[in-house]
Amino acid sequence: MEKEYHEGGFTLPGEAGYEKLTLELAEKWGADVIRDSDGTKLSPEILNAGRKIYSTICIIREHNAFAQAHPDSQQQCFLISEAVVAEKSEVAIPLLKGYFDEQFEINDSPEALAFWQVWDRTADRLVPASAWRYENGVITVTGCEKWHRYTASFLCWRVWEEINMYNHTTNSWTSEHLRQLDPRHPLAWAYLKDWLKNWCEANPHTDVIRLTSLFYNFVWIFGDDMRRRSRFVDWASYDFTVSPAALKAFEAEYGYALTAEDFINKGLLQATHRPPTKAKRDWMDFTQRFVAEKARQLVEIIHRYGKQAYVFYDDSWVGMEPYGKYFASIGFDGLIKCVFSGFECRLCAGAPAPVHELRFHPYLFPVGLGGLPTFSEGGHPERDALAYWLHVRRALARQCVDRIGLGGYLHLTLGFPAFNDAIEEMAVEFRKLKALHAHGAPACLNVRVAVLHTWGSLRSWTLSGHFHETDANVLIHVNEALSGLPVQVKFISFDDVKAGALKDVDVLINAGRMGDAWSGGDVWKDASLVSEVTRFVYEGGSLIGVGEPSACEGGDTLLRLAHILGVDEDVGQYACHAPWAFEAAPSPFPVRAEALPARPGVRLTGPDTQVLCEKDGAPAFTLHRFGKGRAAYLSGFEYSPAAARMLMDLIAFLTGADRRAAGVSDHPMVECAWFPNDGTLVVFNNADEPVEATITCPKGDVAVSLRPLETRIMKL
Amino acid sequence: MEKEYHEGGFTLPGEAGYEKLTLELAEKWGADVIRDSDGTKLSPEILNAGRKIYSTICIIREHNAFAQAHPDSQQQCFLISEAVVAEKSEVAIPLLKGYFDEQFEINDSPEALAFWQVWDRTADRLVPASAWRYENGVITVTGCEKWHRYTASFLCWRVWEEINMYNHTTNSWTSEHLRQLDPRHPLAWAYLKDWLKNWCEANPHTDVIRLTSLFYNFVWIFGDDMRRRSRFVDWASYDFTVSPAALKAFEAEYGYALTAEDFINKGLLQATHRPPTKAKRDWMDFTQRFVAEKARQLVEIIHRYGKQAYVFYDDSWVGMEPYGKYFASIGFDGLIKCVFSGFECRLCAGAPAPVHELRFHPYLFPVGLGGLPTFSEGGHPERDALAYWLHVRRALARQCVDRIGLGGYLHLTLGFPAFNDAIEEMAVEFRKLKALHAHGAPACLNVRVAVLHTWGSLRSWTLSGHFHETDANVLIHVNEALSGLPVQVKFISFDDVKAGALKDVDVLINAGRMGDAWSGGDVWKDASLVSEVTRFVYEGGSLIGVGEPSACEGGDTLLRLAHILGVDEDVGQYACHAPWAFEAAPSPFPVRAEALPARPGVRLTGPDTQVLCEKDGAPAFTLHRFGKGRAAYLSGFEYSPAAARMLMDLIAFLTGADRRAAGVSDHPMVECAWFPNDGTLVVFNNADEPVEATITCPKGDVAVSLRPLETRIMKL
Repeated sequence: MEKEYHEGGFTLPGEAGYEKLTLELAEKWGADVIRDSDGTKLSPEILNAGRKIYSTICIIREHNAFAQAHPDSQQQCFLISEAVVAEKSEVAIPLLKGYFDEQFEINDSPEALAFWQVWDRTADRLVPASAWRYENGVITVTGCEKWHRYTASFLCWRVWEEINMYNHTTNSWTSEHLRQLDPRHPLAWAYLKDWLKNWCEANPHTDVIRLTSLFYNFVWIFGDDMRRRSRFVDWASYDFTVSPAALKAFEAEYGYALTAEDFINKGLLQATHRPPTKAKRDWMDFTQRFVAEKARQLVEIIHRYGKQAYVFYDDSWVGMEPYGKYFASIGFDGLIKCVFSGFECRLCAGAPAPVHELRFHPYLFPVGLGGLPTFSEGGHPERDALAYWLHVRRALARQCVDRIGLGGYLHLTLGFPAFNDAIEEMAVEFRKLKALHAHGAPACLNVRVAVLHTWGSLRSWTLSGHFHETDANVLIHVNEALSGLPVQVKFISFDDVKAGALKDVDVLINAGRMGDAWSGGDVWKDASLVSEVTRFVYEGGSLIGVGEPSACEGGDTLLRLAHILGVDEDVGQYACHAPWAFEAAPSPFPVRAEALPARPGVRLTGPDTQVLCEKDGAPAFTLHRFGKGRAAYLSGFEYSPAAARMLMDLIAFLTGADRRAAGVSDHPMVECAWFPNDGTLVVFNNADEPVEATITCPKGDVAVSLRPLETRIMKL
Repeated sequence: MEKEYHEGGFTLPGEAGYEKLTLELAEKWGADVIRDSDGTKLSPEILNAGRKIYSTICIIREHNAFAQAHPDSQQQCFLISEAVVAEKSEVAIPLLKGYFDEQFEINDSPEALAFWQVWDRTADRLVPASAWRYENGVITVTGCEKWHRYTASFLCWRVWEEINMYNHTTNSWTSEHLRQLDPRHPLAWAYLKDWLKNWCEANPHTDVIRLTSLFYNFVWIFGDDMRRRSRFVDWASYDFTVSPAALKAFEAEYGYALTAEDFINKGLLQATHRPPTKAKRDWMDFTQRFVAEKARQLVEIIHRYGKQAYVFYDDSWVGMEPYGKYFASIGFDGLIKCVFSGFECRLCAGAPAPVHELRFHPYLFPVGLGGLPTFSEGGHPERDALAYWLHVRRALARQCVDRIGLGGYLHLTLGFPAFNDAIEEMAVEFRKLKALHAHGAPACLNVRVAVLHTWGSLRSWTLSGHFHETDANVLIHVNEALSGLPVQVKFISFDDVKAGALKDVDVLINAGRMGDAWSGGDVWKDASLVSEVTRFVYEGGSLIGVGEPSACEGGDTLLRLAHILGVDEDVGQYACHAPWAFEAAPSPFPVRAEALPARPGVRLTGPDTQVLCEKDGAPAFTLHRFGKGRAAYLSGFEYSPAAARMLMDLIAFLTGADRRAAGVSDHPMVECAWFPNDGTLVVFNNADEPVEATITCPKGDVAVSLRPLETRIMKL
């Protein structure tokens, strides 16, 4: 291979005590940057090896002395007690029962108590503060309605930083529990800025400070029972940003007060997968502005010391969403995203930051996130790396990123030479793709796909965390498929549609479950939304509905776009109404039935809906003409390379796009990208076996014999 | 066998032209009564054979000359057009498009038009009458919102009596379409009474007039496309009772007017499986009183001629529900119910009528209801009869009926001698059971089971028609199981519970799907209902929840009784909340996993819920202590003899009842009934194979060797 593809754009996690290994692997993988990892420090031999140095900082953590001296500077959250049945007129509610008491401490300060609430959940009624009292972890409610259930909502200090808590409890660490400071606390904020200045002064070798991430962690609530240790985890929720000070600042600015119930929501909390209230949206904006303003001050300090500030978009990221309104104002020099999947690659690549870097998986750790061995006996880290690479490379072919890297403990690679070779090969392929992008974008069909959901562009590509954390949501499968397809993709909200966003759309996708944020829930009760989508398709647009698109009770159809889709779903409302009988018809393209689940309630709205696939007697994949446009319905969608191909075939069928412009293979497991400026065809074999395929591209037909999983890059 | 069990209590359908066969089979089956069937007339040889004669009358049918002379005396209904998308400001709605035009004719008389409505379904808004006009089957709406969908609701004459239409179209008859009169029409009513008087005078041989049934058929709407011929069929709906005259009478009495939308309900109509509106309840009561009053007049005429009036509870039964408030006031001398199942037997046996008669299946017809051959090539009517008998006999052992019988064309039995033998044997077993009941009721456990749903006692045992018509509803499976168990069963409504009905209940059952009439839907938002059930179990009662019991959105749990059941269901609201991990525990009784479907959203509410069966990772059968009581949750319930046994085992476990009092077998496929006054044990082998079992009853242990499917009656 050419030398130019053997160096650069690679960040290696160095490890003190393994200086020789660090430099050897830096050479092998072509690393131009060496970084430390969480909890590690680089030694002088590494710092002076002539490579750039990234240093990781978790800004709100590792200040236990300050936290102990100023316990009110710690972060907080609302919790809800278990519900207690009133056997008599008085009921005692133990507040923290069921929670992990190493994570939480009750904040019963007067200013916190003012925000506490007691609810009669049976009657859905707030209990007046005069009817309850608090003492020693227990609230006693008087004047109860017998047999009603009562809960208490209260503020807690979060006394164990959640990532530390997770690593600690998972790996049986015995080190001190790390606490976390709230930058909204004036003393803490002054302290943190000073601390950062001191740090910069003390670390002249560092070129780039890698902030991991900023202030507020995603929501992660532990229970005391190992049968439900991780009670609640939502990677995209804002409920760990709350405090009396924040609530008061919010009220002063917005003119209305939030209450505990705005966060607690009957105990269901405010999960990202559910449609937000107006209060939640306001709170998010409020928090985003706060975080951006504070983060900008940190970046300014870093820049003042001649260093760059990159941010690792994970963990304590809350409030700095890269597609949010205020991200660019922070002034980060780079955005780092850990990736398992193609959609994460696109998420990083499309964000407004000067440098985009991917941290690959597996993390150099004995076990993986799923608890299976990686860098330990029985592990096959090279297989894991390759599996992730297959997802990532197709997205990398569509959109450029600048850097890749690894994380963790380098010495764990000892004994896994196949892994080291695999990373070397991936790094080369990455650099070749990057070089192609440098000469011009790959050919893309003239098809503009818009994914429609509640969050719109704010949550471009991701739902709430990684694929394996959200894979029960059909949309992440769709996004993963889209991440490698030669079409333009954007994410739009329901408000965008009403503001005219469909004028720039050819294919509209709505994919989710009834009532969730992805399908949309009650927003579909808005006639102007429904009629705008109706107009769009009637006049020639294409609609793809997946799962329970536009589902919302109270209408004459459950799917509010049923008249366009040609299918509806029976959740009981069609009692006694017979469904249309149908026979599956030949499909204009290969259908991957294995990607489509049975959804027994689905039925046709009329005899003109064409059924391409049937599962358990119900339509699982349909086509329907509506006016000058067309719609497709899929009962679900499980990502696989073949399923992604089916989605591409569907999009091409709906729009009549000429596939050859972007290159198209005759094999469902072979994908390609055509870089016209370089006259170069990139071909991926997604099959774990040799494959013969013919690619049709603007230069004609190209026959290829591919090794299992091969990446072939061909100048034509 | 004893002679006494060979005669009586049997109604035979006679057939003119087959006089010899009629009398032979009357002898073989011990028929004391010969009846005609729909569309047949008995000959003098049969009429004079010394047996009692039943004659069938469908009072509203076979008056075509009158109907033609008085077309406005025909029955009506509301229909809704297809929804039409407005491409411009004017939209044309063809009213009858998609309906079977031999069933319906538009009623565009001025008094009907006053009840028509046009709706903008997109905006859920009524269009003012000034904005639309009607001509030649089409409504034209002006001033439409572009891209909204418009429907029209209109009144139709129903010009083909539905049972005749069904038989006609199914069997390709060519005879005249029979029409039906509305007894609310004054001329029609006077005509019908006269007609009945004339009929009685002309038919002196008839001892019993078998009314089949009364005036208004259950709702059955045909479409013009064979892919959805039977568009809507609801055996328990009242929507075929409507007319301008009825609507006006309703308004005059109730002080508020019903509109088309009260019946059309966005096109979903008012199916029995869905919770009723107040308007629907009022309409039902209004109709029941009208039907009872008119029926009483018919019965009086019949009695005046020295005949008896039995009613066949099927077809045009609407308004005369045997468990309704006004049924007894009609004065019927007997109630006849066709039965496939045990629950239908109990429905008949428990109704307030002097004589209870069951019409067995199969009907003597070439094909069965499902379209498979019975009395034709490939048919095995004796197997069909036995299969139904297995369901019925266990219910017959619990509660007495007076008579059994058959229906249809007797000559079809020629060539099926095995059927004739099977019926002979069943008739003997029936008479033996009847004789046992005559000496005293079978022993029943001291357990009072109450099935809780919207309709309460009005819809005791049945949901809406036969088992095979409602088998997608879990409750019919539960009812079928209960129909043969040695427990007291009643059906109570939510209002009954609030009025204190639980004081007479040991085991409360709620079984249904979220939002349906059986689970209850929004009624569970009533805190007084939830707290009364909470009290009931807390103080020692038992609760069995099946499917989605008490499911209703908007609370802190989806199942409003989740705190009692120890399980809840996730329909998306638990996004990011981890479920409790669990392991299935040994069950105190055998679990029939095949009766329990996978319901993936079910999760435990806490670690104290005991899981007896797990399906696809979710709890499918659980037990949970609550206060002094207990609750069980079943993900569903598919009836089988073994499943019924499991339900009995569960009830006995929950209540601690002593099974021996009513007899209990050690084999899951063997059921029994203990008649203490006769010292007689009745044992049913539900298995299609020989079985050895031991029955434990108050007389001790009894070992039996049973033939496949045998009924054994033993004096101990």
